[in-house]
Amino acid sequence: MTHTVDTTNSPSARREDDAVQADAIESELDASARIPKRSGRASTSDVVVARTDVEWLGQYLLGTWADVRLGARELSARPDLQRIDGQTLDEHRARVSGQLKLLVEHGQVHRAFPESVGGADDHGGNIAGFEELVLADPSLQIKSGVQWGLFGAAVLHLGTEYHHKAFLPAIMSLEVPGAFAMTETGHGSDVAAIGTTATYDESAGEFVLHTPFRGAWKDYLGNAAVDGIAAVVFAQLVTKNVNHGVHAFYVPIRDAVTGEFLPGVGGEDDGLKGGLNGIDNGRLHFDQVRIPRLNLLNRYGDVAEDGTYSSSIESPGRRFFTMLGTLVQGRVSLDGASVAAAKVALTIAITYGNERRQFTAGSDTDEEVLLDYQLHQKRLIPKLATTYAASFAHEQLLTKFDEVFSGRADSDDDRQDLETLAAALKPLSTWHALETLQEAREACGGAGFLAENRLVGLRADLDIYATFEGDNHVLLQLVAKRLLSDYSRRFAKADFGVLARYVVEQAADKTVNGSGLRSLAQTVADFGSTARSVGQLRDASAQRQLLTDRVETMVGEVAAKLRPASKLSQKDAADLFNLHQSEIIEAARAHAELLQWEAFTEALEGSAGLTSGMHDGTRVVLTWLRDLFGLGLVEKHLAWYLMNGRLSPKRAQAVGLYTERLSARIRPHVQDLVRAFGYGPEHVRASIATGAEKARQTEARDYYRAARAAGTLPAPEKKPARKR
Amino acid sequence: MTHTVDTTNSPSARREDDAVQADAIESELDASARIPKRSGRASTSDVVVARTDVEWLGQYLLGTWADVRLGARELSARPDLQRIDGQTLDEHRARVSGQLKLLVEHGQVHRAFPESVGGADDHGGNIAGFEELVLADPSLQIKSGVQWGLFGAAVLHLGTEYHHKAFLPAIMSLEVPGAFAMTETGHGSDVAAIGTTATYDESAGEFVLHTPFRGAWKDYLGNAAVDGIAAVVFAQLVTKNVNHGVHAFYVPIRDAVTGEFLPGVGGEDDGLKGGLNGIDNGRLHFDQVRIPRLNLLNRYGDVAEDGTYSSSIESPGRRFFTMLGTLVQGRVSLDGASVAAAKVALTIAITYGNERRQFTAGSDTDEEVLLDYQLHQKRLIPKLATTYAASFAHEQLLTKFDEVFSGRADSDDDRQDLETLAAALKPLSTWHALETLQEAREACGGAGFLAENRLVGLRADLDIYATFEGDNHVLLQLVAKRLLSDYSRRFAKADFGVLARYVVEQAADKTVNGSGLRSLAQTVADFGSTARSVGQLRDASAQRQLLTDRVETMVGEVAAKLRPASKLSQKDAADLFNLHQSEIIEAARAHAELLQWEAFTEALEGSAGLTSGMHDGTRVVLTWLRDLFGLGLVEKHLAWYLMNGRLSPKRAQAVGLYTERLSARIRPHVQDLVRAFGYGPEHVRASIATGAEKARQTEARDYYRAARAAGTLPAPEKKPARKR
Repeated sequence: MTHTVDTTNSPSARREDDAVQADAIESELDASARIPKRSGRASTSDVVVARTDVEWLGQYLLGTWADVRLGARELSARPDLQRIDGQTLDEHRARVSGQLKLLVEHGQVHRAFPESVGGADDHGGNIAGFEELVLADPSLQIKSGVQWGLFGAAVLHLGTEYHHKAFLPAIMSLEVPGAFAMTETGHGSDVAAIGTTATYDESAGEFVLHTPFRGAWKDYLGNAAVDGIAAVVFAQLVTKNVNHGVHAFYVPIRDAVTGEFLPGVGGEDDGLKGGLNGIDNGRLHFDQVRIPRLNLLNRYGDVAEDGTYSSSIESPGRRFFTMLGTLVQGRVSLDGASVAAAKVALTIAITYGNERRQFTAGSDTDEEVLLDYQLHQKRLIPKLATTYAASFAHEQLLTKFDEVFSGRADSDDDRQDLETLAAALKPLSTWHALETLQEAREACGGAGFLAENRLVGLRADLDIYATFEGDNHVLLQLVAKRLLSDYSRRFAKADFGVLARYVVEQAADKTVNGSGLRSLAQTVADFGSTARSVGQLRDASAQRQLLTDRVETMVGEVAAKLRPASKLSQKDAADLFNLHQSEIIEAARAHAELLQWEAFTEALEGSAGLTSGMHDGTRVVLTWLRDLFGLGLVEKHLAWYLMNGRLSPKRAQAVGLYTERLSARIRPHVQDLVRAFGYGPEHVRASIATGAEKARQTEARDYYRAARAAGTLPAPEKKPARKR
Repeated sequence: MTHTVDTTNSPSARREDDAVQADAIESELDASARIPKRSGRASTSDVVVARTDVEWLGQYLLGTWADVRLGARELSARPDLQRIDGQTLDEHRARVSGQLKLLVEHGQVHRAFPESVGGADDHGGNIAGFEELVLADPSLQIKSGVQWGLFGAAVLHLGTEYHHKAFLPAIMSLEVPGAFAMTETGHGSDVAAIGTTATYDESAGEFVLHTPFRGAWKDYLGNAAVDGIAAVVFAQLVTKNVNHGVHAFYVPIRDAVTGEFLPGVGGEDDGLKGGLNGIDNGRLHFDQVRIPRLNLLNRYGDVAEDGTYSSSIESPGRRFFTMLGTLVQGRVSLDGASVAAAKVALTIAITYGNERRQFTAGSDTDEEVLLDYQLHQKRLIPKLATTYAASFAHEQLLTKFDEVFSGRADSDDDRQDLETLAAALKPLSTWHALETLQEAREACGGAGFLAENRLVGLRADLDIYATFEGDNHVLLQLVAKRLLSDYSRRFAKADFGVLARYVVEQAADKTVNGSGLRSLAQTVADFGSTARSVGQLRDASAQRQLLTDRVETMVGEVAAKLRPASKLSQKDAADLFNLHQSEIIEAARAHAELLQWEAFTEALEGSAGLTSGMHDGTRVVLTWLRDLFGLGLVEKHLAWYLMNGRLSPKRAQAVGLYTERLSARIRPHVQDLVRAFGYGPEHVRASIATGAEKARQTEARDYYRAARAAGTLPAPEKKPARKR
């Protein structure tokens, strides 16, 4: 391209252009509120007033496990389950330990366990309830997650009947608090490479657990520093001098009476952390510690008395991933808890932004409400849209999880879909929660920094969500792997001609299934005039096309670049992969964003009858919100769309204008949209979100109004006459 | 534009294209290391090996106040001045109060005060030393900032001889700890609108200080909750029933002996905060509290005994901004402290990333160092480049500050430049510090979340830097105001023809002065082939053009859109402004980024003789780093460059490839580049950055190597034969 002085880019030409586009956008948005009533035909009298039916929407957001959520929220509202800011490490740990006992008393934590041991076999409900505990104190959520969701779940999913009977009752009752000892100081994300060994001693019929070097100490384990009496320890299973890979073992670590480490077991306290200080994270190491053979959690791999290894899964790699796959619920619940935290953050910042006034913009006396400033809208409203998207996406994830774990739909494909979906959504929602908490904190200024307004505490606690239960970047790489394998399965030996044919074939079948790679026909669209193009952007199918096309193209490009890898040495193939690592992760992120968008869109258009009660006014508001989310994604990746010729510069400019105007349209509805999250003062517990700010503003304005009326307000100093 | 299936965008065509571009970039980078030696002509034998002269660069980074910085770092290395993690609120407050006394003993805090009262009249040195205290504990930095940089500085800069003599000695010695009572619960950024009044009572010759409503309580004040014996209180000065606007008053608030509030004074503790808990922030309110007339800090406005108001500055608006302008040092020092924190964060994350190994990518046994992964480079190295840019920019800001406050160059223009520069840089550096601390935390995984590795603590403390001493967005709006007024001064009644002529005239004079709007001729460049264009991108003048052009264009466009405002009602003008608020702030941000880029470039090319000792090898590395910063900015705003026809899609693609390759080139030098920051283990104090990780890795690798050699390593389970 030759760079010339282009008068269409002159300020004045651009300004007119913008005005034309802005007008087109406004009329398009007006039209969007004139959707035809469901039963009749559109006419001018059919104007639908955008209005949020808070009660209906609130119920809709509660989803399938509404009752469990409401019950857990009731628990979270109890002061004795809530965090007390400013406690010391020891006080906070003791409090949360005590709170776990309260959870047992209230029967809130056993849903996932089998009926045979007093549970309810309710996997989705279990996670739904667990997530809501984040409102009381994230330490409580995570500590109960450690006890029942990791330690207990490992016994449940990796153990067999014997272990369930022998260990689960005491785990469920909290008689035996335990640690989930997988991560080591030297190995976090790469679990397969851990150093701890469990070597079978045929003569004694025991496993010998051993930590061979400092890097193999178990680390960052909740319950390890103080409370843990036992642990599920992951170690390389060695028998007959063969390493069968990582397996899990049930290992007593402390004397239940004295609290002392058992012989051969040692450990350290991880000490103070950036958050979650109600949990006693620590390190463990083992010096030739002997445990009975039966303590191997042997669902996927067993060792006979004579030391013979057997497994129902022949491939060691597949066996490993199957075992790890049973622990997907950690990721599922972090996804949900992050969404809940983002909801609380926005409830606080939006309530405050709707009451707080600052600067007199358009009047001599009245100050403006923060949310009437465009910038404030831009900072918070797109995050509200993303939170809705993440919330609907989480409901899909939880449903999928429940289907797989209940056995209703647990084929290999289902399990793979579940794992991909969890690996895709957890990074996005955990980062989104952190960004939202931070933006909310800054949007509340100094008040946001006070512990009493909760944003800083929640942010500190949720910080680690981005790297635990799978580092976010590593998870996205897993997603990319799935996308690439979907791609290569389709195009194994395909040349470009085949690819093009495939694309055309796909045009007929746009149905989306599973969480793998989407495909969409490349439609040849004439984008015509500004007005036309503006309308098209807001069209759901245009958004779907833009988002899907990007994922598909990125995956295709990366796949092409990686294709030579099969002919290269291991080292050169790794280098080639590394050279494209950022692109790979970016493709996975794009895919995850698409999954969120699809979830939002299904929530709007869902055929499952769920949306049947949706009022037209609510539909208008939610559609704006979905459009803001979708176009916001396009805006975020605008350079890609321009570089790849998917959007003309003019249409690209319209995207930014569009998201701004959508925010302005949504602005009057934001308070309703956060009310629909359903968190009352007992959950939000932020003094700036109680109406106190409004009361202060009213008091101040009344004071000045009265003084003006009484003539007691001192006159302002006269401005000096302007000199010439 | 018509959207057609363009085969040049097909995966295979794109892949070849990328390869061509990548090759061109690599040879361009090779060429960049063959710069001619300073004295001779380039030849093939003149290859300069990229290599960082750590000692020289370290000295260079220390800047003008190197000795003061080194002295303050020595203090910061003392354990008794350092933070103890996990202290309670009360313990931490008491510790920091005690540390302030140690600072007095060490004579570190009086540099800015006049020689007449025992100070050194050294403004730049004072700030330089103050900034380095962030290494010991940000609470110590900010609490001493409250005492001497705000409370004391207000007496110094807003008071006159009487106040200096009467109050400064006890402030300097810490005999009188004090609060800086400007912000109110109801008014933060909009200081002019505070509610507290100071009404002159002629009969008594006293001011009556009063808080008329809850929103007018002073809030978030360091030293107010516990330690403060006095305060500088900002209030609306009322005399003879005229409000002369905000002035500052010296007000005793507590009995020095009992610590009780004086009659009429009340307050509250702000309690626990997200960070900086070594500071006792609190609230104050006044019920008809009487102070002597002479306690008005009367440098810019005075009240005679008979109640007559007088001021050397006629315009109330200008007077207000002049008073506030004297307090710019808060912003200057936050800028510097943020840069220091980013340096520490990168020292930790890069040291760890250089030692930590995870996943065997290209070999069966050896794991890769994290920083050899492209993604890890992408996460940290651009942040290193930005930190260098921010560091050089801060040195310019501090120099400007010293010139103005020493009186060496304190014209109105100088002061305005200083304020604009501070308002531009402080938002960027404070946000950058938070982003860098967070990225570093995540890059260190679970270890990053432990308090012992410092990242979480620093992040928690620095969080508030983004909104105090001026909310970052409000500051950027101030910058935009300056840019718009520069623009309108130039083009007051200009039509587009004049504008074009102006642009051409400017071509001859590209010298950059001050911190206001830049202009640059729009050169008509032929961007030719990929290879050529790739070379051009890395050229400093091309970067300058791209960055400057963007600022100028954005400001011009916004100015054009706002032009009708002068003919509108106040309300409509405010609405028009609000409609473009995001653009306005974005233009200011672009300008601030340009200022950072210019500072980096001047540090490389500076004519001041400063760079004379720079080795060619160091210059190569720093030039790569500057290019990474510059092209990183272009990449960040790529959509703008594409939409506005400044970059073709092909060149735009080259930008991303370029920054990736630059990161890879810089990667071998990153450890040297953080070593040059000059922070020793006594400053970094993170257990993962001590070499401990390397020792663990070595121990683990030695263990496996020895076991393999001895034949004692269990064999891996055989993979099952592949089924067909």
